[in-house]
Parts: sequence; C-alpha cells; structure tokens
Amino acid sequence: MLNRKNTFSEPVRIFDTTLRDGEQTPGVSLTPDQKLEIATHLSEIGVHVIEAGSAAASAGERQSIKLISDAGLSAECCTYVRALAQDIDFAADFGADSVHLVVPVSDLHIEKKLRKTREQVSAMAWSAVEYAKDRGLIVELSGEDASRADRAFLQELFREGIDRGADRLCFCDTVGLLTPERAAELIPPLCMAPLSIHCHDDLGFALASTMAALKAGATCAHVTVNGLGERAGNTALEELVMSLEVLYGHATGIRTEDLYHLSTVVSRLTGVALATNKPIVGEMAFTHESGIHAHGVMRDASTYESIIPERVGRKRRIVLGKHSGSAAVETALHEMGYRPDAGQLAEIVQRIKQLGDTGKRITDADVMTIADAVLAIEFAPALELMQFTIVSGSNAMPTASVTLTVKGEEITCAATGNGPVDAAIRALQRSVSDVGTVRLEQYHVDAISGGTDALVDVTVKLSKDGVSVTSRGARTDIITASVEAVIAGMNRLLREEKHEDRSENSH
Amino acid sequence: MLNRKNTFSEPVRIFDTTLRDGEQTPGVSLTPDQKLEIATHLSEIGVHVIEAGSAAASAGERQSIKLISDAGLSAECCTYVRALAQDIDFAADFGADSVHLVVPVSDLHIEKKLRKTREQVSAMAWSAVEYAKDRGLIVELSGEDASRADRAFLQELFREGIDRGADRLCFCDTVGLLTPERAAELIPPLCMAPLSIHCHDDLGFALASTMAALKAGATCAHVTVNGLGERAGNTALEELVMSLEVLYGHATGIRTEDLYHLSTVVSRLTGVALATNKPIVGEMAFTHESGIHAHGVMRDASTYESIIPERVGRKRRIVLGKHSGSAAVETALHEMGYRPDAGQLAEIVQRIKQLGDTGKRITDADVMTIADAVLAIEFAPALELMQFTIVSGSNAMPTASVTLTVKGEEITCAATGNGPVDAAIRALQRSVSDVGTVRLEQYHVDAISGGTDALVDVTVKLSKDGVSVTSRGARTDIITASVEAVIAGMNRLLREEKHEDRSENSH
Repeated sequence: MLNRKNTFSEPVRIFDTTLRDGEQTPGVSLTPDQKLEIATHLSEIGVHVIEAGSAAASAGERQSIKLISDAGLSAECCTYVRALAQDIDFAADFGADSVHLVVPVSDLHIEKKLRKTREQVSAMAWSAVEYAKDRGLIVELSGEDASRADRAFLQELFREGIDRGADRLCFCDTVGLLTPERAAELIPPLCMAPLSIHCHDDLGFALASTMAALKAGATCAHVTVNGLGERAGNTALEELVMSLEVLYGHATGIRTEDLYHLSTVVSRLTGVALATNKPIVGEMAFTHESGIHAHGVMRDASTYESIIPERVGRKRRIVLGKHSGSAAVETALHEMGYRPDAGQLAEIVQRIKQLGDTGKRITDADVMTIADAVLAIEFAPALELMQFTIVSGSNAMPTASVTLTVKGEEITCAATGNGPVDAAIRALQRSVSDVGTVRLEQYHVDAISGGTDALVDVTVKLSKDGVSVTSRGARTDIITASVEAVIAGMNRLLREEKHEDRSENSH
Repeated sequence: MLNRKNTFSEPVRIFDTTLRDGEQTPGVSLTPDQKLEIATHLSEIGVHVIEAGSAAASAGERQSIKLISDAGLSAECCTYVRALAQDIDFAADFGADSVHLVVPVSDLHIEKKLRKTREQVSAMAWSAVEYAKDRGLIVELSGEDASRADRAFLQELFREGIDRGADRLCFCDTVGLLTPERAAELIPPLCMAPLSIHCHDDLGFALASTMAALKAGATCAHVTVNGLGERAGNTALEELVMSLEVLYGHATGIRTEDLYHLSTVVSRLTGVALATNKPIVGEMAFTHESGIHAHGVMRDASTYESIIPERVGRKRRIVLGKHSGSAAVETALHEMGYRPDAGQLAEIVQRIKQLGDTGKRITDADVMTIADAVLAIEFAPALELMQFTIVSGSNAMPTASVTLTVKGEEITCAATGNGPVDAAIRALQRSVSDVGTVRLEQYHVDAISGGTDALVDVTVKLSKDGVSVTSRGARTDIITASVEAVIAGMNRLLREEKHEDRSENSH
C-alpha cells in the first residue's frame, strides 16, 4: 500500500557531508584519523560520495583529504571549495576526486556577504569550473542560498557552467527555507545535468524538501549522519535512507543494518549526543512504555513500529512506567523470575503507577522491590552500606573505602581508581567478590546543567553470571548517587540464587 | 516570495499533547504539580487545546486533569480515553472539557491488538460517543493507525460518529507512516467535521505530513513541545508554529517569543535533554562557527538565518573554531579587549585552526592564551594551583581544601559543599575573595556514557564585575576536570584590570 509509483532516479545517489557540513557544527572538531575512521564506515555502508572536508579551512583538513583519498575507499572523495584557484589547487594537490564548488547565488548573499555583482559571481564560478576541470577534478557546481535566488539567473549560471565543463549541479537550501511545494516548482528547470539537493533543517523541513526535490528530478541527496551540521543541521542520512525504503518503496543499496552502528561512531567521535527521540537512531526510537502500545507490540510488533528494529541494527525494548498495562508488567516480571497471580499482578501494576506519579524513572530494581512487597517475599538485602569515604586531590591518588555488611558479615575494602567515582565502585566490587563477580556494564549520567547543586541522575547496569539489572541513584553529589545506584543493583544481583525459589513458590 | 496562497483553515488550531503523548516517552513521568506548571505555560502561549493526560492511566493522572481543569486556563482541557464507559466517567468526573476518544481503525490494530472485528469496534466507538455526549463532554473521535485503515471503513465510522454526536474527528498516524502525498489523498474525504491531524516522527515526516494534512483541509494539529512522545516522538509545537509562520505565511496567534522558554521548562521537568541541533530550540540553532557563515551573519544576519532569534525568545551566538575566518576571530578578540594588527590576526586565526585540528572545543580561555602569545603579552597567571584535596563519604560532610598562589602569595582555604565538586569550587572562590568576587554562572557536564573511565568534559562560565568568560577542563575524574576549568577561567577574569593596557598598547 505504501509503495508509490517510483519517480526517483535509479539509484538515488547519497552524498555524505558529515565530515564537512557536519563538522561545521559549532564545538565539533575531528582529527584526520577520526575523519578517516568515519569515512571508512561511510564507504562500507554504501554512500556514493564523501565530502571529506574544506581544503582551505586548515592544514588538518588537507591532511584528512589526503588520508581519505589515499585509503582506496569505493566512495568518491570530494572536497568543498570556493571559486578560488587556491582552494581548487588544494583539492587537486591533496588527492580529491571531485570538488563541491560553492558559489553564492541569491542577491542577498552576492551583495551583502560578498559585496559583488551577479556578473562578477558568474564570471568567478565559470572560470573556477574551467580551472578545476583543467586540474582533472570532477566538478559539482553548487548554488548557495539557491532557494532565495533569482530563478533565471541561477538557470543561466548553471547552463553556462555545464558548457564550461561542470559535471553535476547542486541546489543548496542554505537557510532551511525550502518546502516540498517550492522544491517541486524550483527543481525541474534546473535538471540540466545530474542535480544534488542540499537542505538545512532550520524549520524542520530538510528531509521532506530533500525527498520532494528527488521526486522532482534531483538525482543525489546531500546528507549527514545524525543530521549533524550548522545550526539545526542537515538532512539526516538514516532518515533519508529509511524513508526512501519504507515510505517510498525505493531500494537505496545502503547497508541499513549498519546505520545504527555508524550513528554511534559519529556521535562518539564528534561528542554530539543524540536526542533520545531522534528517528531511527535515538535511544527511545524502538522503546515502548505505554501499556496499550507495549501490549500491541507484544502481540504483533508492526502495530506500533514502522520498521523492524533489526533492519537498522537495533533491538526492541519494553520498559515499565506509569502508563504500563498489566501485559507489559507481567512480561517483565516473568523475565525477572516472578510469577504473580492475577490479583498480585494488578497490585504490582498499581504500585508501579504510583511510583511513576511521583515523577521517578523506574528501573529493574524498583520493580523488584515492589514485586517482593506484593508477593510477600521477604527481601533481606544482601548488602547494607555502613559507610563509604573517598579522598582525592591533585597530589592524592583517588582512593575509596567502603564498609558493607555482606550477608550479615561486615567487610571493609579500599580501592583506588582513575577518579573518586571509579575508586568507590571498585571498592564496592571488591567487597562483594567473595559472593560473586559483579561487572559494571554501563555507567550513565545525564548531562548536568545549571549549577553544582543540580540533581545528578546516575543509572548503572550491572551484571553477574549473565544476568543484568538496571538501577539508579539521584543526589546532588555524583559520588553518593553512583554508590547508591551500584548498591541497589548489587543487592538485586546477589540474591539471584533465590530466583528459582520465587518462581517455584508461586507455581 | 515565501508566502503562498493561504490554503489553511483560519485559524489553525493547536492541540498540545505534551502532557499525554509526550509524557508517554519511556522514562518520563510528571507529577500533577509539574503538569499544571506546563499547562499554564501552554495556555499562556496560546495553544487551543491541552490534552492533560490519560484518565485511566493512574490516580495521579486523574488528579492532574482535575488540577488543570480547575485552574481556569483559557485553553480547553482534554483527556485521552478509550471507548469505555469507565474512561469517559473519569474524564467527566475529574472535570475535563473534552475527550480525545481513540479507537483503533486499521485491521491490524483491530484484529491483532484488540482481537475484535470492525463491526465490534464501530459499535463500541459509536456508543462511547453517545455516552460521552450524555456526560456533557466535547468529543473528538479519533482513528488510531488511520494511515493503514481501510478508507471506506474509516469514513463510515466517522460519518456515523458525527451522527451520534461527535464534535470533531482526528486522523492518527500512529506509527509515522504518513507522507505529504498520502496526506493530500487521504485527508479531504474525511473533513466531514473539524478534523485534527496527529503524526509521529518515526521516519522524520511528522512535521511535513502534518503540514500537508492542514493544507488538505484538516483544521487542527496535534503537537508536543520539543517533539516529545513515544519512540521518535510527535510533531514539535515549535517547528509547526514557526514553519506555518515563516514558510507558509500563516499567522498562528501563538506567542512565539515565549517558545524557547516553554521548551526549556519542558526539558527541565521531563528530564529529556534536547539535541543541540534541534530546530528552533536546540542549543546550536542560532550559533555560528564557520568562518564564511559567521562573516555573512555579521554583515547581514538573514544570510544564514531563517528567523531572527529574538522572534522565538533567543539570541544569536558566534563561536570560534577551526572553520572560523578572520572576521569572526577579530570580532571576538575586540570583545575581549585585544586589538591585533593584520599580521597578528592572521597568526591567531592560524593557531585557533591548529587547536581545532586536534579535536578540541575552543573556549574563551583558549583564545586568550593564543592571543597573548601572538601579541607577546606576558601572561603571568594570577593563580597557580599548588594542591587540592577533597574528602567525602556517607558520614562525612563533603569538604575540600585548596592551596593557590594568588599573585605570588600562597593561600590555603577550605570549604564544604553539597558534594565534593561544589566544595572544591567554593574553596576556590573563597581563596580569591581578596582580589575579587568570582561567580559561577554556569556549570555544565556533557552526558557521561560508557564506563567510569570515560572522559568527563566540564565547561564553566564564570563572571566578575559583569565580565564573563568560558573555560573547560577534561579529565576522567569529574572533580579534577571541574577544578581545572574553574582555575583556567579565574585566571582570565582576575587579570581583567590589564585589559585596558592591552587595547591601548596596540592602538
């Protein structure tokens, strides 16, 4: 039903500018080695062109272009240049296959930014095209701020550009002012040569306008991983690919099952965290809480999912909260080894909702505490914290001591670490080592903003013998919050041996 | 040029579901008081309908609905209900003005989720409409998963629903499968009564499909602040409003200058951080780094901005990095009191690019260090850290001591705080109190993910006598990183008195 008459070029080419426009995100800076790592992933996943950087920007940029062009990737290695011989020389000298040759085309940009005339800009563009062809480069002649350009001027600039040797053209919606309607109107007359569409997301329309331009005759989409880029960023690679495939029934040839991995690599190397609700790659994109929805998903995943998560290299996750219905809670409880009857289940669901109403996030440890209470399972915590102390400083190795009662026996351990949090967690792990090896699988702190008195929310995932549990601590003090989270989780893992009892008791 | 023939209803109604669909984001849970706070903001900003919650979900939800309906807001107070008398009774008993009465309409949802037939669902829907009207409620009859529903069935369900008393209808694109093309096709035959459009962003098309539906005859858009919601979330309020106004020339009546404030309130209360490149409300949405772009913006902001930031309650920001051209660097240096000549400026730009190539974020303190070196200004740091020590623990008040040389004189101070980071920063502030009052304006830590050995990146903004400076520290240890950041910033602020010298020397 969703497949539509295929109006796209075959194939739609993907031009990835994560390493150029994406890297222009304020605060983002990649080393040449990091750029090569990302470029390799991009080429392997199947993008057609990689814009490796802006040759004129810095020596490191030029080194990146050289590294990437020398790496023997199957993708074309492109670089951003202005209509200047120096920029074009950099591109050729450092081994780029092609140039993304950008010239301002709106009167606003021509007059206010460059303080030139249309004629001057055209002349610069055309001679830059000729010079780049002389230097053996593939040329994509690109109109900056094309959405606000005079249409006749832009057509003439492009037409003559092709006559002078330009291989491809590009329409840049530099400020994110394009709409699908405008794209359908502006793009067709410009398709005199293979045309790229380059959109910005200032008003949230980058993806839709890119798609509309592709339907109107453009053959190539400029994108960035995670939609990185200046201001609100560019069209996101993963969104374009998956909507082409799922919504428009157009095979892209991209290895979609690697999209999530690529996204995490780029997020880690750029330091730009993703919104949890980012389509396709956000933490919550395949997570279900609401009772109704989780129930539907358990019966048939397609009720509340547009894509099978594995198709983009992910997994489905069901979490509990105040919207959770009894079906979701029951599934989670079964996984934890509880077998409540109908009345007990209703009571547990009720208490989870109450906890949710207080505004708290609900972890595995919270659910277990509630289930124990309702099933009248006595939960004598395996661990009780008697004290912890940390010492750290510029001349002091971060050191922690903890005193716990572990199954009634008092144990004091000390450990050092690469910081006081690390030291405290190591001391906790050491003090339970007689009863089990508890591994720290994940340690997460939400961004802390405001002042040093902000609440610090620490979530940990611990595991022992293949069983894992999430728990949290929230304090204004990051160390106390971390210790609290780890003890809550350890307490749950260290009574795993009682698991069987619980299931059997209630059978 | 961007204004188009106005094909929208007058006015487009805004139905905000932040407190219902938004709150269904896994991990998000709001207390009734927090819901009232958000509802009050929503009403003040001018939304027409507030979906306050889901009456059946929990007692807290019902309390929220009561609080909001009693608050005398100008917006209509709506609640989500299923086609069940119990849900409708809750809505009426707790004071809602209206119900968003949701019934599954695709065969997939009807058969797989509900295990019912179309006839059963229709009968339930129609009698629920009648019952809700009997209870005095405004009824918005809503088709869940309408994008995959049989068209004739949905039309018949809606037509008879209106006959039974439904006041409005709603088309829910529950899984984010709608496209602008499909909306243009599916919406017109359903406009038998005022129709709402409710879109999810699983494939990035929520905003574009919402807009297309509004153009096709829908009169109301369901949205959430910051695009919160299950999985990839819903259409974002701020994006819909600003694209209606800017791209489609349609006045919404929303107080756009309060959009950013509303966004920060919702982000703080839900604990859901925004992507830095979120359109309109992301940290970077009006920040410029790239040399070319910053240069354009300084000459005429509209070259690289689709909206004046003040229109949504924000400010423009120029930051420096490896893409910065000399115009942006010169402006920043002037603000810091430096007056380099052309050769010195070129050298400073060069060194900033080199620093950027190493992958570092560049703060004010970094730029000043470079400028001092190039202008051969001897920078004897006002402060040098001799040592710091922190002690904390479950039975110990977090305590820090620091020893600094402040302008040559050795000073040791101690302080307590609500955590060791807080204690250390207080001790630092105390030790410089003789030479000035340094305030901590902002303390920010990026989210920490992975393990306890992850690099912790601390950025602080300090101020003294109205002058502010940003600086950073990055270590695996959050306390050392914080101390490093604060000392770097203090060193810059405490030699402000030399500012004048620098400018005068180079005049």
